Formats: sequence, structure tokens, C-alpha cells
Amino acid sequence: MQALVLEKKGELSLRDIELPLEVGPDDVKIAIHTVGVCGSDVHYYTHGAIGSFVVREPMVLGHEAAGTVTAVGARVKNLKVGDRVCMEPGVPNMNSRATKLGIYNVDPDVRFWATPPIHGVLTPEVVHPAAFTYKLPDNVSFAEGAMVEPFAVGLQAATRAHITPGDVAVVIGCGPIGIMTALAALAGGCARVYISDLSAPKLAIAGQYAGVHPVNITERPLAEVIAQETEGWGADVVFEASGSPRAYEGIFDIVRPGGTLVLIGMPVEPTKFDVAAAIIKEARVETVFRYANNFDRAVNLIASGKVDLKPLISETFDFARSIEAFERAAKGLPTDVKLQIAMPG
Amino acid sequence: MQALVLEKKGELSLRDIELPLEVGPDDVKIAIHTVGVCGSDVHYYTHGAIGSFVVREPMVLGHEAAGTVTAVGARVKNLKVGDRVCMEPGVPNMNSRATKLGIYNVDPDVRFWATPPIHGVLTPEVVHPAAFTYKLPDNVSFAEGAMVEPFAVGLQAATRAHITPGDVAVVIGCGPIGIMTALAALAGGCARVYISDLSAPKLAIAGQYAGVHPVNITERPLAEVIAQETEGWGADVVFEASGSPRAYEGIFDIVRPGGTLVLIGMPVEPTKFDVAAAIIKEARVETVFRYANNFDRAVNLIASGKVDLKPLISETFDFARSIEAFERAAKGLPTDVKLQIAMPG
Amino acid sequence: MQALVLEKKGELSLRDIELPLEVGPDDVKIAIHTVGVCGSDVHYYTHGAIGSFVVREPMVLGHEAAGTVTAVGARVKNLKVGDRVCMEPGVPNMNSRATKLGIYNVDPDVRFWATPPIHGVLTPEVVHPAAFTYKLPDNVSFAEGAMVEPFAVGLQAATRAHITPGDVAVVIGCGPIGIMTALAALAGGCARVYISDLSAPKLAIAGQYAGVHPVNITERPLAEVIAQETEGWGADVVFEASGSPRAYEGIFDIVRPGGTLVLIGMPVEPTKFDVAAAIIKEARVETVFRYANNFDRAVNLIASGKVDLKPLISETFDFARSIEAFERAAKGLPTDVKLQIAMPG
Amino acid sequence: MQALVLEKKGELSLRDIELPLEVGPDDVKIAIHTVGVCGSDVHYYTHGAIGSFVVREPMVLGHEAAGTVTAVGARVKNLKVGDRVCMEPGVPNMNSRATKLGIYNVDPDVRFWATPPIHGVLTPEVVHPAAFTYKLPDNVSFAEGAMVEPFAVGLQAATRAHITPGDVAVVIGCGPIGIMTALAALAGGCARVYISDLSAPKLAIAGQYAGVHPVNITERPLAEVIAQETEGWGADVVFEASGSPRAYEGIFDIVRPGGTLVLIGMPVEPTKFDVAAAIIKEARVETVFRYANNFDRAVNLIASGKVDLKPLISETFDFARSIEAFERAAKGLPTDVKLQIAMPG
Repeated sequence: MQALVLEKKGELSLRDIELPLEVGPDDVKIAIHTVGVCGSDVHYYTHGAIGSFVVREPMVLGHEAAGTVTAVGARVKNLKVGDRVCMEPGVPNMNSRATKLGIYNVDPDVRFWATPPIHGVLTPEVVHPAAFTYKLPDNVSFAEGAMVEPFAVGLQAATRAHITPGDVAVVIGCGPIGIMTALAALAGGCARVYISDLSAPKLAIAGQYAGVHPVNITERPLAEVIAQETEGWGADVVFEASGSPRAYEGIFDIVRPGGTLVLIGMPVEPTKFDVAAAIIKEARVETVFRYANNFDRAVNLIASGKVDLKPLISETFDFARSIEAFERAAKGLPTDVKLQIAMPG
Repeated sequence: MQALVLEKKGELSLRDIELPLEVGPDDVKIAIHTVGVCGSDVHYYTHGAIGSFVVREPMVLGHEAAGTVTAVGARVKNLKVGDRVCMEPGVPNMNSRATKLGIYNVDPDVRFWATPPIHGVLTPEVVHPAAFTYKLPDNVSFAEGAMVEPFAVGLQAATRAHITPGDVAVVIGCGPIGIMTALAALAGGCARVYISDLSAPKLAIAGQYAGVHPVNITERPLAEVIAQETEGWGADVVFEASGSPRAYEGIFDIVRPGGTLVLIGMPVEPTKFDVAAAIIKEARVETVFRYANNFDRAVNLIASGKVDLKPLISETFDFARSIEAFERAAKGLPTDVKLQIAMPG
Repeated sequence: MQALVLEKKGELSLRDIELPLEVGPDDVKIAIHTVGVCGSDVHYYTHGAIGSFVVREPMVLGHEAAGTVTAVGARVKNLKVGDRVCMEPGVPNMNSRATKLGIYNVDPDVRFWATPPIHGVLTPEVVHPAAFTYKLPDNVSFAEGAMVEPFAVGLQAATRAHITPGDVAVVIGCGPIGIMTALAALAGGCARVYISDLSAPKLAIAGQYAGVHPVNITERPLAEVIAQETEGWGADVVFEASGSPRAYEGIFDIVRPGGTLVLIGMPVEPTKFDVAAAIIKEARVETVFRYANNFDRAVNLIASGKVDLKPLISETFDFARSIEAFERAAKGLPTDVKLQIAMPG
Repeated sequence: MQALVLEKKGELSLRDIELPLEVGPDDVKIAIHTVGVCGSDVHYYTHGAIGSFVVREPMVLGHEAAGTVTAVGARVKNLKVGDRVCMEPGVPNMNSRATKLGIYNVDPDVRFWATPPIHGVLTPEVVHPAAFTYKLPDNVSFAEGAMVEPFAVGLQAATRAHITPGDVAVVIGCGPIGIMTALAALAGGCARVYISDLSAPKLAIAGQYAGVHPVNITERPLAEVIAQETEGWGADVVFEASGSPRAYEGIFDIVRPGGTLVLIGMPVEPTKFDVAAAIIKEARVETVFRYANNFDRAVNLIASGKVDLKPLISETFDFARSIEAFERAAKGLPTDVKLQIAMPG
């Protein structure tokens, strides 16, 4: 079967590769329709590794996907042939301690698409457990279905924040995950969200959404804006989505007494953190690792129209132009939020 | 000062009455602009009592109010003369155990406007603690400001529900509080809300809002609709806002395993409750008594445009026509959600 | 293999029966050592059914068990031959929506020992998933291991209560589950627990434990005792473990404002419930269905000595005297808390 | 009135000083009986400042106190003359936003005994709001009453941890607050607590308590001990009570997936924090600033015998020997946990 294969750091090919396609009793087979290009896919392409995950063998890329069910295993009840679906790319050990607790995202044995040595799904067909495959309503397109995965990260952040309805939030960092987090926070109960960045084009994209207020920190310090907008009280929830150690300087100045900081961005090195400032506000800090139990809720929010991800799809490439899509993604244009690849047929 | 006085059950007069107007160091004086008519005001008028609260002396009615600050006490910092404000009508003992815990709404010593023997605010001027007076942003009208109080009940319900973003909710009962709850649940993170009632005109009003799905139970059982819409799983949160004992029959059939039932409506008698059905689903039941710490969040949601209460204001009467407003409210027209009274000047 | 078989309502035999003993890759085989007699086992014996669960075929009884691992499946890592263990009797569908959420106890497809048509474990050997089998430390006896299951119900109640350290609790009903709940609440953070019943011998057993205060309601109303002991404030948590509809009369009088009621006992009929009383206190009501994710924590508490269940084992019968054990249990002596059956060898 | 006055850094005198003693309507007057010496009192003596709090005028020391009510204000209902009491040393602005939320400990306007410029209570008589004065049961001594304040810090940590009954905890740092936290965590629901330090004498004191397991990190790495004791899973809750930046190195290695880190110790400088390690475990981090709403629960736990603080009182000095007590405290002997001062009479 043809697939977009990362041969090694810096080298992609669109070529045939053998992939397992047996459908087990709890599995479904899916004809892939659309796959989004994620920053992690691009990072494996440009760097050959993310932390301790190193590409040592050729690996198929892609983990943000939607498609159509073409076969179902004997015990599958929740899906049938012809269902349009999106897929959760990480599959845990179903018998592990973490999985039993409902936090399968932190099961150390999770197998995650396009994370070495597990192949991804930039290929026409894939087999996946039905329990991690979610039906799309008629009014949700495949393109939107392939956005569920990145949105689920933002939704996990909004969930872990334990938003009280009417809260005021701040998102630091206006990359794709920052924008997803802002939209999830709004849909998840916040009254308004301030999003900060250095890049005016990125902020312009976020600012299209009612309730999202861009803050360009090259023009005005974030702490000053939040103090003014909250009468000196601070934000109820601050989401750190930049992964930049510099974002941590003075971060508790923008959190209200008893407020919450949610960490999504992953700095590459240990980061200076003002413990005393956190303690004096008795702040709570939550962290977000991927997602668990929220693809159904993400689909609900898209289907109801509360969250519109379509403006974030910057361009769609045919599967034959996959490599071009990755070269474009590697440029990191500030006006690109999400590039997608559409399979033929 | 002139006021709308409930002389006794069934007898209203618009007349002069002496009311205390000293401004203490932590108080503000407010020129009242708009007052909403609440079902409880009407019930005191038609029945002379609610439970153990009995009208024994003439009492000024009205507790949903907005106005303008005309004087501030010596220690007040959060407000100044000229601020447009809305007011929280219940003032607790600030030194009580409940208040220290942040649940001042359940302090047994709360003094609540228009709850015997405490006077309400259908009168041109009132003095109130600054700590329970909230500034309205420029884009929130007095009419909307006077809607904050009933919306705060719905918001308290949405808060106590501990909504997970993307949840599916049901509201039983499409009266004013049911509609407020549906809007608060949507703004507070639900993907969609089903609202049920027997009255088509009431449901039509709720159905104007995107994301609110009316269910006319004279046409189809609620349990059947919810089973279909959730693939047999049930709703994440069910809000009981009818106060009808009949709503409790089979109510756990519409709650998902591990889901939540929120009780807002207050049946007049002990109600049959299927404990075994609740236990088998390991459901959680929350209850809602007025509100605490949410007027600021209610104002945030209205100001941001996430919640639009204007379509719910059915008609506005001049203060001079207050008695007429109450007579109209006492009729309980299904097309009336909220009647308001505007003070002169 | 020999087993204690409930042939039909009222008829027990100790006889050979064929039971499946293949060890799957995720399973372990266990030589049973001790089995406790539970009220539900006895109820199937005396009534032939519990609710919709009806004994239609001969069924092996017993679900509170401890033993020794004699074989392990190919993928099992957490256990090895010779490990002393206790077992969680309910096994869910691992792919279900409830299981993924971590609330596998409310998965509608749970298969639970000695619940028709699933056989129990009053038999020398059994095969069980390793994921639901828990190692006993050296200082926890088999007899204590067989107490983990009923204690887990009390521990689930203490967990769902969300005890704040230092809380004051009340347990209504001094049967085995009431006592387990009282011990779990104390170990789980309560400063003291009041337990009420009509039976002086039952209360005497509970009263052996430091921190557990018996209240004989034939002598003094519970509400009066709690009012006095809490200076009129009420208990932080009330556990209803009697299953008696009469316990619901005035139950919110003993809950503090903003407090919690936890429902464990399952009345056979819909029960009158004072919704208005619950609302005025803005009480939260939690319910408890069996347990999930707490056998390890139960074992921890027993091993550390914080919970001593040995005084609750009233008598131990040899397997050959199983029927006698059930006849004794069916008498319901107030001085019997738990009867156990020890397997030969 | 005579008092222990810190004249300036390094200079104490026992001398007369004028202190306000009017009893307002919500106040009580208390004859002080016992006062504990806290590390912060000693730090003001030895350094003249803690962070931005600088001793610029002579200040009475002492904030851990118990005594007897000698007068009550007109509106006080919860206390009467002769009641034995302990006192919460921080009094917030009762009208502040934080106080209304129930988190009065983070009200920026809190006035806290012996925190410049507010006088402490090492003096025979003091006036205090009744709402922050707590009755001691007969079986709680004045010496124990004066231990409520430091224990309340540990109890706040145990509360913020949201312990699930049966959890396994680690406390880093075996100073007075570390020991208090360990005892609060055990009483608050943990099955067992590991406490680590470099000092064998300190660990020996903690090790007296059943359920508290000392770990001497000069002998064996903490991470190795916890991995072994939890079969590689990690601790459910880790309390950082040392305030040492070095404690943060590898701290998430000892937290289980989805576990909690509670920060109590306040490092003097920004501290390196491994954000990626926190995120990969999706850990939650809570912080603790003093306490709110827990003196009553602390008293409950001491009165019930669940927490025995008496072994931690190392020596008691007469008021006349106060300066000697501070000199001894300034030495920081590893065998001293708490020194107390008893007033004459």
C-alpha cells in the first residue's frame, strides 16, 4: 500500500510499504479521507526525533485523520460499514492501571500513530480499535473530522482547567494549539479569552472569533492588559501554550488569587518557576498530556456549531502532493494554522 | 418615598412608605432604574406566603434590579458615583460559618429583598452593601442588568453541575428559570441542551436559541428522545427546573451512567424518588439554592455576547403601571417570560 | 469440581459441577482459600432473586474471596504463581464507554460473580482476569483478604463523599455495610463518625472502634444527637446505609448547609424524598454502586493497620459445612457481622 | 501591658507596650495561656524581615496561641466568657472578593499576627474577632490548642491534595511543617506516608508515628524507595515541605501518572521545574498558603485522638523566659520540633 514514509531525518518518500490490515474482533477498517499535518509530524521530518522518541526505521507519518468504515470486527457494535469517522491515534493497554482509572492517556504503554516505532496513517487504509473510532454526524465534514485530534488537545486543557461558567481566561501562545485552546475554553464556559503572541498575523487569525481578544506583547505587556481588563484581580485561568521558558516569568502575576495555570506547551529544558509567587496566590497548576475520553465531546461541539474549525484549515493538498505539504509546513508561515492532505477517491 | 407595597395577600398599592436610607461605610446608595417581576413576587401577591415566609406586614416587592450609584460609603473602593450597577438581593451575616466557607447563600441569616419581613426595591432609591453590588459594562443595558438575578439562578445550576466541556444536557421545564438554566448550561460548556415542557409557546421561545432543542412531551416521551439522541447512553447532566413531582418518574432513565441530576425546582411536597435507579447509575444529585459568587460571572457572559437575554423581556411597564404589571404576571401567559418595570427619570 | 450450588430458591447443595478453567493470556488461576458470605448470596438463597436478577439455573454462590495464584497467562506481568491475592468479582467489557471513563462499575455489561447467570467462587479453583486480581501483602491474612470486597463498598462510599479532612460523619444503619462505611469514613479522613441503628448488639460491635459513636435511635432521635454534637450546624457527610425508606424522613435535618448525603442502601421501592429540604441546604447527594479502582487502596488501608476488619469476622466454617454457614447467615443474628467459609487444604 | 517585643533585628525585650484592647461587637477578649514559637517569629528575630515584610517598628511576636475568653462583644453568639479557645491569626477584609469566595487566606488585605506592622500575641491579653476564635473541647489542652495553628498548615496541604482514601503519600522535608503535613495526610485518608530528610534525629521523631515511614536520603535515594514501595507506579500525592530547590530535581519521578504534587515550602528564589516531566504524567500541582476554614476541623482531629501532637512539644518556657526560648529556637536543634511559652496565671 502506498504511504508517506519518513525514511530518516529530512527524507520523505511516497512509496509502497507493507502494513498490517487484519481486522480483529474489536477492530474496524477505515478508508482514510483526510489527514492533518501536525507540528510533531513536521518535527520528526526536520529533526528525526522528539525527546527520547527517535526515528530509527522508516515510519509512515500522520495521526490526525478522518475516513469511512469499510469493515467491522465480529464484536463491534458501535459502528457499521459506511460510517464516517475520526480516530483517536493513541491506543493504551486496556488492562493497565492507568486505563482502568480512566486516564489511559498516561498509560506508559500507549501506542500512538506516527510516534516511533508506530506507523501513522498517511496511507489509504488503516485498521483501528472500534473503541477509539468515533462516528461523525452528517453535518461534520471529513476535513473537520481530521481537526478533532488537535482540537481534542485544546479541549483536554479546557477540561483539566475546571472552568467555572463565566470565567475569564488567558492563552499564552497563538500557534495552532493555542488557538484550539482558546476556542475550547470559550466553548467550555469562559466568558472571554485573551490570547497573547509576538506575531500579528497569528493574532489576526485568532481575533476573527467573537470572544477571543488578541494581545500583541510586542506592543504592551500581557500583565498590564490583564490587570486592566480584570480590575487588578487577574484571570481565573491561564493556559500556557507557547512552550517558551520566557512565558513563565511573572506568569502568576496574571493569575487571580486561587486561580489556575494550565500547562500545555512543553519547554525542552527545565524551566524557572516562581514557587513563592504560586504559593502566595495559592494557585493550582494543571498539566495536559494529549487527551482522554473527549473525542465524542469534541465532535459534539463541532456538530452543534459552538466551535467552528473550518477557518483554521489554511490549505488542502492531494495525497500525491504530500511531500510538498510537509515542505510548506516546515516553513512555519505565521498565516498557516493547519495544512491537510486529502486521499484520492 | 413611593414604593409598590404588598399590603396583604391580593392587595397592592403604589404609595409612600418610610424606608431607611442611611449609607454605612461599606454601602452604596442606588437610584433604581429597572426591576424585573419574579414568580416569587407574584406568589406573595396571590398567596401571601411562600412556605414558612408569610407576609404579616406591608412589604415592598421586587428583587431583580439595576440602577445607578448615587452615593458611596467611606470604605467603598470598588464603586463610585455614576456607576451603572446590578444588585445581589441576599445579604448574609458576613461573620457566619457558611459565609466564611464561601457558601453565603445557605447562611440561615441571609436577609433577602422582598422576602418577609425584608422590603424589596420597587421604589426609586435603595441602600445596599457595595460587596453585593456589581458594575455593569457600558454594553449591558439596565434591562439586561435587571435580568442578572434570574440568570444567576440558572448559572448557579450550571456551576453546580460541574459540566465537562462538550456535555449533553436536558432541562425539564421551560419556565423562566428553565430557559435561564438552558442558556447558562450552553454558555457554561454544554454542546447542546434539550428542554422539555407541555407548552408549545414556551418551547417556541426557548427554541429561538441555537443549541437549545425543544422537546414537547405531549408529543413524544422525553426518555425516548434522549435515548435516540445519545445512542442509548443518556444525558451527561439533567436539570430539573419544573418543580413537578411527576418529573421525577423515570428521571434516571435519561441520565447517563455516572451522570448528574441538578435539582432547581422546589416541589411543595416530599417527592417519590427512585433511589435504586439512582444508585445503579451511580448518579450524583446536586441542588441549587439561589446563587453565590456568580453575579460577576453572569455579567461577564452577558457583556461578551455569549448569553443574550433581551429576547426574554416580554414587556416593560412604567413604575406608575406597576400594579398592572403584576396583574399581567399573575395571569401566567405562556408567551410571557419576563415582565419588567422601569422607574421614572 | 465441587462447589456450593444454589439449585433454586431455598435449595443448596455441595456437589460437583463443571466450570471453565482455561487460563487466557490476561488471566490467572487461583486456588480459593477463604470466601465470605454476603447478604446478597443469602438473599438469592432465601428469595431466588434480587430485583431483575432471577436464579433460573443452578448457580455457584460466593463472591468475597481470597486465595493463591496457581497459574498465570502469557501476558500477565503484575502477578506470579504463589502470590496471595484477593479478587474483584465484577469484570466489565474493557472496551465499553463506561470502562474507558474509569467507571467500569456502571458498565451495563459487567459480569459479576454469583449474580445470575454468572457462577460465584465457592469452589476450590477459579480463573479470573489478572487486572482484577490484587496481591495481598504478607501481613494481610486470607480471612482479611476475603473482607476486601465488602470493605470496598464502604470505601467507595467514603471516596464518593469527597471527605474534607476533619469532617464529621453520620452513618445510618449498623449492618455489615454500615460498619464498613463507618470504618472507611474514619480511615478516609473523618474526625469522628456517629452510627445509628435500632439494634443494641449491632451498635455494640461498631462501638468497639475508637472514633465510632453509636446512636441508639430507640433511645434518642438522631437529629437531636447530631444537633447537639455539632452545635446545630449538622454533619458534613451523612451516609444512608440502611436501605429503609423511613431513614429518609427528616434526613436533611442532620446534613449541614452545603453538606453531602451518600446513598448506599437500596430501598426496594421509590422513596419519599424532601426535595425542598435538600435544596434549602444546597446539599449534594452522591450514590454508590459497588466500587471501582479501590481494591488496591482497600488493601493498603488494611495492611497499614488503619483499618482492622478482624473483629468483624464472627465465625469461620469449613467448606464442608457451607450449607450450615448459609443457614446461620439466613437467621440474621444481630451479633453476626461476617461469616466466612475456608476451603480445605 | 507586658509583651515580648522585637525591637529590631536581633533585639528582643520583655517590656510594657500599649496595645488596643477595645472589644467590638463581633470581638472577644482572650487571656492568653500558651503561645508556640514559630520559625517565622524566629526569622524576624534573626533576619528582621521575611521577603517584603520588614520589621521597621517594634513589634510583638507570636501567632500560635490558645487561651480563655474573658469578654464577648454584643453580637457574639458562638462563644461565652470562660470558653477555652484557640485563634486563627489572620483576619481578612470580610467584604473582599477572596473572602466572599471562601478563600480568605489569599485576600491581599489579610492582617496577620506578628507580620509587620501587625502585633502578635506574646502578651497576656488580646482582642480578636469571634469568627476567627475556636472553642477547644475539654480534652484538648491549651498546649495542644496552641499547636492548632501549625497543624492547620499541614491540614490545608492535606485538604488541597484531594486525597482519595487509601492513597500513598510522600512528604519531602521533616521539619515541623513536614511532620504536621505527614500527620494531616494520614488522618486525612492516606494509608501510609513516607517522609524524607537528611537528618536522622528529625526522622526519628516522625518515625514514632504508626504509618509514617522515614526515608533518610543520605542512605538511599527517595525515588528508589518509592519505586520499590509502589511497584514502580509512584506515590499518589507528594508534598514538598522542604522549600529546597534541590527537592525539585526529579520530583515527578516519584509522582504516579495522574498524581498530585503539593507545594508548601517556599524557596527563596525561582526554582527549576521540569515542566515536560509534569506534563508526561499529567500531574496536578497544588499550592498551600496558610489555611482557611480548617481550625474547626483541626480541633476535631485532635479531640478525637486521630492526631496526637503532644510528642512534638519539645519544651515549654515561662513567659519570663521568652527570650531564652527564642535563643534556643534560633539554634534550630534537630531534636526540637516545637517550643512553647506559657503565660503566668
